[in-house]
Amino acid sequence: MHASPLKIGIAGLGRMGRRHATNLAQRVQGAELVAGCSPLAEELAWARDTLGVAHGYADYAQLLAHPGLDAVFLVTPTTLHADQIIAALDAGVHVFSEKPLALNLADCLRVEKEAARHPKLKAMIGFVRRFDASYRDAADKIRAGAIGRPFLARSQTTDKNDPSGFFVRFAPTSGGILLDMSVHDIDTVRWLLGAGAARRVFATGTIALHQNLRDANDVDNAVATIEFEGGEIATIYASRTMAHGHDTMTEIVGTDGRITVGQNPRLNRVEIADAWGVRNECTPTFYERFADAFLNEAQVFVDVVREDAEPPLTLEDATEATRIGIAVTESLRSKRSVEL
Amino acid sequence: MHASPLKIGIAGLGRMGRRHATNLAQRVQGAELVAGCSPLAEELAWARDTLGVAHGYADYAQLLAHPGLDAVFLVTPTTLHADQIIAALDAGVHVFSEKPLALNLADCLRVEKEAARHPKLKAMIGFVRRFDASYRDAADKIRAGAIGRPFLARSQTTDKNDPSGFFVRFAPTSGGILLDMSVHDIDTVRWLLGAGAARRVFATGTIALHQNLRDANDVDNAVATIEFEGGEIATIYASRTMAHGHDTMTEIVGTDGRITVGQNPRLNRVEIADAWGVRNECTPTFYERFADAFLNEAQVFVDVVREDAEPPLTLEDATEATRIGIAVTESLRSKRSVEL
Amino acid sequence: MHASPLKIGIAGLGRMGRRHATNLAQRVQGAELVAGCSPLAEELAWARDTLGVAHGYADYAQLLAHPGLDAVFLVTPTTLHADQIIAALDAGVHVFSEKPLALNLADCLRVEKEAARHPKLKAMIGFVRRFDASYRDAADKIRAGAIGRPFLARSQTTDKNDPSGFFVRFAPTSGGILLDMSVHDIDTVRWLLGAGAARRVFATGTIALHQNLRDANDVDNAVATIEFEGGEIATIYASRTMAHGHDTMTEIVGTDGRITVGQNPRLNRVEIADAWGVRNECTPTFYERFADAFLNEAQVFVDVVREDAEPPLTLEDATEATRIGIAVTESLRSKRSVEL
Amino acid sequence: MHASPLKIGIAGLGRMGRRHATNLAQRVQGAELVAGCSPLAEELAWARDTLGVAHGYADYAQLLAHPGLDAVFLVTPTTLHADQIIAALDAGVHVFSEKPLALNLADCLRVEKEAARHPKLKAMIGFVRRFDASYRDAADKIRAGAIGRPFLARSQTTDKNDPSGFFVRFAPTSGGILLDMSVHDIDTVRWLLGAGAARRVFATGTIALHQNLRDANDVDNAVATIEFEGGEIATIYASRTMAHGHDTMTEIVGTDGRITVGQNPRLNRVEIADAWGVRNECTPTFYERFADAFLNEAQVFVDVVREDAEPPLTLEDATEATRIGIAVTESLRSKRSVEL
Repeated sequence: MHASPLKIGIAGLGRMGRRHATNLAQRVQGAELVAGCSPLAEELAWARDTLGVAHGYADYAQLLAHPGLDAVFLVTPTTLHADQIIAALDAGVHVFSEKPLALNLADCLRVEKEAARHPKLKAMIGFVRRFDASYRDAADKIRAGAIGRPFLARSQTTDKNDPSGFFVRFAPTSGGILLDMSVHDIDTVRWLLGAGAARRVFATGTIALHQNLRDANDVDNAVATIEFEGGEIATIYASRTMAHGHDTMTEIVGTDGRITVGQNPRLNRVEIADAWGVRNECTPTFYERFADAFLNEAQVFVDVVREDAEPPLTLEDATEATRIGIAVTESLRSKRSVEL
Repeated sequence: MHASPLKIGIAGLGRMGRRHATNLAQRVQGAELVAGCSPLAEELAWARDTLGVAHGYADYAQLLAHPGLDAVFLVTPTTLHADQIIAALDAGVHVFSEKPLALNLADCLRVEKEAARHPKLKAMIGFVRRFDASYRDAADKIRAGAIGRPFLARSQTTDKNDPSGFFVRFAPTSGGILLDMSVHDIDTVRWLLGAGAARRVFATGTIALHQNLRDANDVDNAVATIEFEGGEIATIYASRTMAHGHDTMTEIVGTDGRITVGQNPRLNRVEIADAWGVRNECTPTFYERFADAFLNEAQVFVDVVREDAEPPLTLEDATEATRIGIAVTESLRSKRSVEL
Repeated sequence: MHASPLKIGIAGLGRMGRRHATNLAQRVQGAELVAGCSPLAEELAWARDTLGVAHGYADYAQLLAHPGLDAVFLVTPTTLHADQIIAALDAGVHVFSEKPLALNLADCLRVEKEAARHPKLKAMIGFVRRFDASYRDAADKIRAGAIGRPFLARSQTTDKNDPSGFFVRFAPTSGGILLDMSVHDIDTVRWLLGAGAARRVFATGTIALHQNLRDANDVDNAVATIEFEGGEIATIYASRTMAHGHDTMTEIVGTDGRITVGQNPRLNRVEIADAWGVRNECTPTFYERFADAFLNEAQVFVDVVREDAEPPLTLEDATEATRIGIAVTESLRSKRSVEL
Repeated sequence: MHASPLKIGIAGLGRMGRRHATNLAQRVQGAELVAGCSPLAEELAWARDTLGVAHGYADYAQLLAHPGLDAVFLVTPTTLHADQIIAALDAGVHVFSEKPLALNLADCLRVEKEAARHPKLKAMIGFVRRFDASYRDAADKIRAGAIGRPFLARSQTTDKNDPSGFFVRFAPTSGGILLDMSVHDIDTVRWLLGAGAARRVFATGTIALHQNLRDANDVDNAVATIEFEGGEIATIYASRTMAHGHDTMTEIVGTDGRITVGQNPRLNRVEIADAWGVRNECTPTFYERFADAFLNEAQVFVDVVREDAEPPLTLEDATEATRIGIAVTESLRSKRSVEL
C-alpha cells in the first residue's frame, strides 16, 4: 500500500474534467489533487477557487514536471491521448485516460509498446461502464454462471436529441458515431461475453434529423453487428436523436437466461400516474446516469496504483475496442461487411 | 350435462346489460339468449336488431313466463335484485345477478332463505374479479402455497375522474362509495385470504373534487380497514377521482411472499418513450379492464347450470360482502370503528 | 354485406388448425364451419364430435367441392400453401392461409398471378401480429404521428427452449430459422415503418444449444439487419433457446419518440415478490401470447369477405416478406451482406 | 458561511454510527470528524484506525467538552436522545440526532423548550427520507403542482424477514412497531401532503411469524390510518416479515395525478429473465436503500450549520411524528380509533 495519498494532476477541465477533478479533490479516498492543466485561465481559476487546487499549468509538460506528482488524469481531446499517455509514462507517472484510447490502431499500439517499457506504471482507460454498480452486478452474475454460457449481446448508447445539433461541430474529429459512442458498447459486450477477437462486422446507419452530418460523412443513428471468433454475436445501436433521454442499455443472452442492464433508463424511483399514463422520467444525459460510476472508476484507479494491483481492464482491451470501432465504421461507410 | 343450450332471458339492457346480452348471444357456449326485458322500447329493439333476440318484454313477470326459459340474467338497479331473484326462483328459473346482492342485510337473508327452498336452482352474484384470468391465477398460486399463509390484503377500485360528475346523481341510491365500489374488493380479499367472518372495521373518507356528494352524505375517496376473525387484515381504497384511468388492484401478503394483481393498470403491451418519459396508457374504465372476465363469468354460470355443479361463489359470500360493506359505510359516517 | 354466414372449410386440423377451427365454429361472427379436411381420421372425428362439423374429407379437392362452400382456411404445411391457394381460387373460393405464403419467390409470384385473375376473391395470409390489439394500437399511434417519422425498428421472435429439440426434425423443410420465425418480424417492421422495398441485408447466427441443427445448415439463434430504400433500418432477432418463455417484441424509433410492443412478455397482471425478487411469469408460447389475435384475424377475414372490403394486408406484402426472408437466409449462410 | 470545517463529534459507533462516521470523515464537505464517543473501546479503536479519529471518549459529557467542538451526531439508543440533545444545546453545540426524537411527548416538548432557549443552535432529527433524491423529487413535483392538491397518502416500511428474530430482543424498548418503523412514514406523509395536525387515527396488527413478540405486546405487521385536520388521509403499513427484501414506498394521490416513490424496491438496473420469469432483485435492507440519503442528510446538516440556514425539518416536525406514532400505537393496543 502506498502510505500517503497519491498526488494527482488533471489535464483538461471542461465539463468531464471538472467532474473528475471534483471527485478526486473531495470524494476519492487516498487521492490528493495537487495540480490542474488547461489552456484556459478561467478553468484553472475554477480549480483553485472551488477545489483548492493550488497549482495550475497551461502546459502539459509542466504538469508532468510538478514536484512529487504520482499520477495524471487525462480528460483531453481524444487526438491528444496517445501522446499524453506516452509522455506521462516517460515522466514516470501513472496515467488514467478518458476513453477512447485513440482513433487509429497505430496510436493504440504505440501506447501499448511504451507501457510495456514501464511495467511498474499503471495505465488505464476510462470505460466507465465497467465501474457502474449495475454493470458490475451483471458481470458478476454472468461469471457465476447465472445465465449459463453467454453467446449473444445487444447494447446501445443513445443520447437525447440536442436540437441545437451542438455535437455536429465535433463530428469531423470524433471518428464518427460508432467510434465516438459505441466504443463503450464494444468494450462492454467484450467484457460481458468474455469474447475473444472479432472476426467479422457489419454496420449501417441513417440520418434521422441532423442533415448537416452528411458533410462529415457521419450519421446520427447507426447499428452494427459483430461476430467474435468463439461464435458470440453482438448487435450495437448508437443514436443521437432520442426523444426521452439518455438511454444506455445492454442485454446478454445465455443458454440458461438473459440479463439486461438499464432496460428502462429511469431517472430515480419516482413514478407518476396522470393523464399521460403511468410513467417515469429518464436520465437526461450520461452524466447523471454514470455519476457514481465515474467516482468508482477514479477510486479503483487510485486503489490499483496504491496497492500495485492489476487494473481491471488493460490497454489491450482499449486497443481491441478501437480496432472493432474502426472496422464497424469502415463497414458503415463502405456498405458491406468487413472481415478482421 | 344439459343436452340443449340454456334458454336465457336478460333483464336490463343498459350499458352492462348490452355487454352481457352480447356475450350470451354470441360468445358463451351452451347459451341461447331468447328474450330481453326493459322498460325502454329502444333497448328491446336494439336486442332484436343487433343480436336477433326475438322476444322483448317491458315487464319482468312476463320475461319469467317466457316459454321454456331456463335462466335469467339480472342487470337491473341494485334495489330490484332481491325481489327479482326471489321471483325467478319462484318461477323455477336459475338466476345470475349483477353485484351487489342488496344494500341491506334483510334483503340478502330473504334471498338466501328463498334459495334454500330451491336447492336445484342455481343463484350466483356477479363478482366479476373471481373470473378474471389474473385474479384466478393469483388465487390458484395462493391455494398452492406460493406465498405461505396469506395474512394481509390491500385492494382498491379506483375510477378515472369523470369531470361531469355523472355518478353524483346516483349517489343517493348507490349505498355510498364503499357499498357501490368496494364490495368488489371486500369479496376479493375474503376469497384470496380465505378469510372467515369480519370482526372489526374502520373507514374514513374525503371529498377531493365532487363537493355536491355532500348532499348525499357520500365522499369521492374512502379507505377502510377490515379485521377478520382469524387475524387477517385487509385495507381497501375506493376513489372516483383518478387522473390516469381505472385502476383496480389487489395485493396479498403471505408469510413466504407477496402476490399483486394489477399493480400497473396497463391498457395493453404498448410502451411509449417520449418527452413525458417511459410510459404506458391505462385501462380507461372497468369495462375494458374486465372484458374477458365478464365473458368467463357468464360461461361459468352457464356451465354450472348445465352441469348441475356448485357455483364458485355462494349467496353467503354475497351476503358477507354486503354485511361488511354496510359496516364500513357505518364507520365512514360515524367516524369510529365498528364491531361486527 | 353477405347476408347469411360464410360457409367455411378448414384444411389442416393439427394444433393450429384446431385453434382456427374452434374460433370459426364458436366465436367468429358471420362464420359457419361446414367442413374439415385432414388425412387423419381422428382429426376429422374431433371436429365432428367437438365442434359439430358434419363433413370431413381426406382430400383437399373434395373439400373445395363441398356444396355452397364460400371460403377455406389453410393450416397446412407451408410447402402446400401455393398450390392450395391457387386451387381454391380456381374453385371460386375465398382463401385464408397461414404464413408464410411460400418458401420461394416463384411460388409467391404464381399465387399473385392467379389471384389477379380472380379480382372478386379475397386471399389473405395470416400475419397474426397485424391483428393483435397491442400491435394495432402501436400502428395507429405511429400513423397518427405519435413518434414523428419512424426510421428504425428492432423486432424479435424468440421461443422458449424445448430441451427435446422437437423442432429440429422440421429444420430441413422449415426454410431455416429466419424464414420460419423472422418472417413475422419482417412483415411487422415493414408495416410499422411504412417501408418500401428492401435494398441490402446482413445476417449471422450461432448454435447455442441444438448442435444437430448443423446437419440442416440451420442455427438456433440468428440476427439480421435490413435496410430499406427510404433509409429505414430494421434489426431482427430470432431464437429457439430462451429460458424464460416466448418473447415476441418490436420497437419502433421515430424522430419524436419510441414505441415498444411487448417489452416484457408478461403472462398476465400477476406480480410475485419473493426470494427470487419482484417478478412476473412469461407467456410460454406464441399460442397464449396471440390467442386473441388469432380470433381477431379470423373475424377480420370473414368481415372482409362478407363486406367485399380490402384485406388489411395484401399478397404483395406476403411476397415481400418471403423475398426478404430468403435474402437474410442467404446472408446467414454466405456470411456476407446481400443486395436486393 | 462558517469559514473553516465544522468540528464534529459522534456519539454511538454501532452499525449506523459507523456509517455516519465514515460519511463525516470522508465524504461530507466542510466537516471534520474530530472525536468519537462509545462505551466500547473497540468501537473507538475502529474510528481511530479506520477513519483517523484521534480522540475517543467513553463518556458523552467528555465528548461535549472536546475543545472547539462545533456539533455532535447522536446515533445512540432512542431513550437517550432527549437528554443528550439537551446536554449538547447546553454545551453550545449544534446537534443532529437519529430518529425518533423520543418515545414520549414529554421528552419531545422538553427538547423543544430547551432549543427555544438556544436560537442560534441548530437541532435536526434524521428523517432520512427527506434527503433521498427520489423523495425530494416527489416533494418538488408536488410543491410545483404536478398532481394538483394532494389529499391521500399510502406509505410503508417493510423489512425483509430475519428468521433469527434478532429484532424481537429490542421489542420491549422499541416503542412498538409503529413508533419504531412507521415514524418514518408518518413524517414522510406529513411532509408530502403538507398536512397540519392529525385529528383521528386507527391501527391494527397481527403476528405473522414471530410469536414471541406477544410478550412485548407487539406485532410484526401493522396497518394504521391517520386523518389530518385538513381532511387529508394517510394509510401506513409496517412489516418485519417480507420475503423479498426491504420495501419502503410512498404514494401520494392528488386531484390531478398520483406520485409513487419506490413502487418496486429494485436493487439496481439489472433485470433477469430465466425460469422464474422476468425479475429484479430487491434492496436487502434500508441500509442499501438509503445509502446516498444518509450522506445527503449529513451534508445538509453541515451546510445548515455553516450557512446559519433553517433546517429543512424542525423539532416540531419530529414531535408531531412522535405524537401520531404514540396515538396509532395506542389504537393498535386498544383496538379502537383514537382522537387527538
